[in-house]
Amino acid sequence: MSYLKVEVKVGLKEGITDPEGLNIKKSLKLLGFESIENIEVKRSYVIELSGKDEKQIKENVEMMCKKLLVNPVIHDYKVEMIK
Amino acid sequence: MSYLKVEVKVGLKEGITDPEGLNIKKSLKLLGFESIENIEVKRSYVIELSGKDEKQIKENVEMMCKKLLVNPVIHDYKVEMIK
Repeated sequence: MSYLKVEVKVGLKEGITDPEGLNIKKSLKLLGFESIENIEVKRSYVIELSGKDEKQIKENVEMMCKKLLVNPVIHDYKVEMIK
Repeated sequence: MSYLKVEVKVGLKEGITDPEGLNIKKSLKLLGFESIENIEVKRSYVIELSGKDEKQIKENVEMMCKKLLVNPVIHDYKVEMIK
């Protein structure tokens, strides 16, 4: 059986407040890191699937994003094959 | 003022159980995605900093990881400049 790895990167859409990022920024400034301008927090899912057809796997993963991994109201996402 | 972007990718060390990944895998299987073999969940922090010296910024970010972003007992991390 052959396996392929796909990475799904999920971040917040432009304009959506990122409270976690803001808090991390605040904490780091308190720790003395003054040079920070901005922090964005993203999640990524590295999914290993059986199959050989890259195109079909990519479609499959897009469907997973729509059904479970991503909230289209606030998230942007990107699907990439990992070589 | 010039800004540089750095990405810190944080994942679990080999051998550490990833309960979130396991649950997502279970949910996706229940939704009919049978071809999934494994899922790893990672976090990434995209940090924008002021400064010009790449080496110094990288050291700075390594220090942030050690002080706040990463738990060295369970996490592996990677620091990358974003061009």
